[in-house]
Amino acid sequence: MVYFDAASAAPLHPVARQALLASLDEGWADPARLYREGRRARLLLDAAREAAAEAVGCRPDELVFTPSGTRAVHAGMAGALAGRRRVGGHLIVSAVEHSSVLHAAEAHEAAGGSLTHVPVDRAGAVDPAAYAAALGEDTALACLQSANHEVGTEQPVARVAEVCRAAGVPLLVDAAQSLGWGPVEGDWSLLAGSAHKWGGPSGVGLLVVRKGVRFAPQGPGDERESGRAPGFENLPAVVAAAASLRAVRAEAAAEAGRLRELTERIRARVPLLVPDAEVVGDPEHRLPGVVTFSCLYADGETLLHELDRAGFSVSSGSSCTSSTLTPSHVLKAMGVLSEGNVRVSLPPGTPAEDVERFLEVLPGTVAAVRERLGAPTGPGPGREEGGREEGAREERPREEGGSEERAPEARAGLVVDAIGRRCPIPVIELAKVIGDVPVGGTVRVLADDEAARLDIPAWCEMRGQEYAGEEPAETGTAYLVRRIR
Amino acid sequence: MVYFDAASAAPLHPVARQALLASLDEGWADPARLYREGRRARLLLDAAREAAAEAVGCRPDELVFTPSGTRAVHAGMAGALAGRRRVGGHLIVSAVEHSSVLHAAEAHEAAGGSLTHVPVDRAGAVDPAAYAAALGEDTALACLQSANHEVGTEQPVARVAEVCRAAGVPLLVDAAQSLGWGPVEGDWSLLAGSAHKWGGPSGVGLLVVRKGVRFAPQGPGDERESGRAPGFENLPAVVAAAASLRAVRAEAAAEAGRLRELTERIRARVPLLVPDAEVVGDPEHRLPGVVTFSCLYADGETLLHELDRAGFSVSSGSSCTSSTLTPSHVLKAMGVLSEGNVRVSLPPGTPAEDVERFLEVLPGTVAAVRERLGAPTGPGPGREEGGREEGAREERPREEGGSEERAPEARAGLVVDAIGRRCPIPVIELAKVIGDVPVGGTVRVLADDEAARLDIPAWCEMRGQEYAGEEPAETGTAYLVRRIR
Repeated sequence: MVYFDAASAAPLHPVARQALLASLDEGWADPARLYREGRRARLLLDAAREAAAEAVGCRPDELVFTPSGTRAVHAGMAGALAGRRRVGGHLIVSAVEHSSVLHAAEAHEAAGGSLTHVPVDRAGAVDPAAYAAALGEDTALACLQSANHEVGTEQPVARVAEVCRAAGVPLLVDAAQSLGWGPVEGDWSLLAGSAHKWGGPSGVGLLVVRKGVRFAPQGPGDERESGRAPGFENLPAVVAAAASLRAVRAEAAAEAGRLRELTERIRARVPLLVPDAEVVGDPEHRLPGVVTFSCLYADGETLLHELDRAGFSVSSGSSCTSSTLTPSHVLKAMGVLSEGNVRVSLPPGTPAEDVERFLEVLPGTVAAVRERLGAPTGPGPGREEGGREEGAREERPREEGGSEERAPEARAGLVVDAIGRRCPIPVIELAKVIGDVPVGGTVRVLADDEAARLDIPAWCEMRGQEYAGEEPAETGTAYLVRRIR
Repeated sequence: MVYFDAASAAPLHPVARQALLASLDEGWADPARLYREGRRARLLLDAAREAAAEAVGCRPDELVFTPSGTRAVHAGMAGALAGRRRVGGHLIVSAVEHSSVLHAAEAHEAAGGSLTHVPVDRAGAVDPAAYAAALGEDTALACLQSANHEVGTEQPVARVAEVCRAAGVPLLVDAAQSLGWGPVEGDWSLLAGSAHKWGGPSGVGLLVVRKGVRFAPQGPGDERESGRAPGFENLPAVVAAAASLRAVRAEAAAEAGRLRELTERIRARVPLLVPDAEVVGDPEHRLPGVVTFSCLYADGETLLHELDRAGFSVSSGSSCTSSTLTPSHVLKAMGVLSEGNVRVSLPPGTPAEDVERFLEVLPGTVAAVRERLGAPTGPGPGREEGGREEGAREERPREEGGSEERAPEARAGLVVDAIGRRCPIPVIELAKVIGDVPVGGTVRVLADDEAARLDIPAWCEMRGQEYAGEEPAETGTAYLVRRIR
């Protein structure tokens, strides 16, 4: 099995494993106790804190260990918001934050706070000017990820931190995806991380609160971890987390270069190997090991299953994936195609052969999924064959003929009824009929699947057709597409 | 080093270690993912939940894993209180709960809720009638530990659960200390546990919410653990926690009998070996491995250090211990002596030789600490020599003589100025002068150490003298003691 989902959880680094084993014997006692075992545990905890602080670039007394990255984000946001309650209740987050940030933001809003989502561009990046514009007199906190977990795009954290600093507003950085690669640049105020993202064990997050940042821990506390993370310290895991952070950092520069070259191969070759595939995320400013693409007319969940059968573990932001019925909020905010979405995130150490084999397997897998769904094949209006024949846009005579035969309906506007059908069916049905519409004519696609709202406009963009907006229908929503080529 | 502090944290059970190692390789992936590694992680998580639920005596879907026992208590109390917000904001806890319960109760009170502390008797047990009396129309939740963490006293949980059930109020049981020994009896509604107390790894707690109990998780959540414990699951530790719970349960009956016999030795022999020592906690209804005693005229922290030097790791609820300046709230609620307090909690597998050696070392250690503090030695008024000579209360002629010589001051009331002196000094000074007071006369002890409030009345009870109350003094408090024998 080839595991390409390091952005979800990285396999345990050998150093983490070793440190965990050693500290199971040395670090099970309560570090708050005064006897030998307790003092030994305290020494281990202090050393872990120093090592982690050095890697983050902060003082040891600014860093506490939490039970997970999610808990670090929740505690950090709640404490910073409460610490500046007198300033106001306004919170700023980017539209593409990790769900832990968005959940905390929702909780803040539910409790009466106000919330601004800063939008991103098609590459998934925020504009520092948008943060500047969002900052108000009553802004208590701004949050920004160091890099996006779904598409790998790096955010301009240092510049956003500068903008926030100028306004006197603390910036909390969710550094979960990047901390293994290096410290977060810039003058941020709070930072959260998650050990199992860098090859450390699960059960450990870290929260940094810079000296001078107003912080009022929320919820019941205790005397542990500066009152910021209650409960018995998960010491063996903390020791393993710190040791592995040090270890991955030592290998980071070399490994980043190697993984970047491998993901570059995927970025470059997927559009050549898979027709109607769109690579998303910033091509330059991105995490070394993450590459994400979407495949028109494919179903993310089936694709994921088929890749799994072929021996590859990847994740997907498609709405048809897992338990969720809405497409990834990241792809949505970027305005890119969500159907047939695949995220490949390479763990450090991934051999080039695994990537090559993935690229061999992928085209057939996508084709098989599409075939099963009855997706259109061959060239169609506005269709480019796998990007290899730019400009080869010959339209099939049958379709032109078809639209002439059905002129009356087409003029009145063709209707595709995809009510009750899940993605990618609405888009497949649209693609099947677009040839029947005369240039200048419109198609109404009726759909009640949430993904259609994202994927129909994205399809228009990819196909060079005009998306003419949506309107409520008797059931679901009507999406209007005008054929312009 | 002999570790006698299992009530703080038990050393890792071999089964926990084995399960942890195995699941480091099998269980690092995200159990929410659909690929092979994720499905394998999900299977491990499901199996762990089933095993833990069976041990607790609940349905698997009633049990979630949390990052610690403390977090389980916090989440359980907050969710249950919020779930019954419409009923009212009244919370009942016993006075001797673990700090995690008391901290959550304080947070509830700070947020506008009302709070009743149910008192305990001198053995540390609550009276179910007191819970019944405390229950009101607006009571949202009652909490009770299954057994006390400092003195080992078992609580009448089943009877309190019955009383609560009759009033329609859910009872949350903090079962941290007892879950390794067996399921909690009775018709409770919520239950919290902590793996590192039963020999599991740190980083795992469990929260059970019975079907039908109104529960509204508080704070930002996510889709993990039924929305009751956000953040990536600490899967290897969860697997190890469940496996070790099963393992310790298999050994529980035999081991409980063995440890009970060992703690019984300590209970019986400490008063014979150490003069002026008081064993506290219920002699019958108690945890198998826990025994607690206090030593008059000794300083808990020094005692702990000296026992550590002698090779024994124990804990202490004395105020002079660790970072806290107030004596244990448990000893306080029980109204027993807090000075020179020692808790011995034996991990399963403790050999009898270790206990024998402890009993050999203890008398000399206490004597040395007392000597260094200038504590009174030999018999004095109301003094029993090590409990071996009940009724041997001959008073030293020097003291009788002394009091006659100093008759005028004694009649006017002798004053001991212990302002600025920490425990056990105020009590030592009191003991030194009591012989100078005629029978019927009083001593005023001026003290500003919080422990004096507990220890001076406790001394009177142990010595058969009369505690005549306290009154504010110019500095600190004046404690009045009347010599009656």
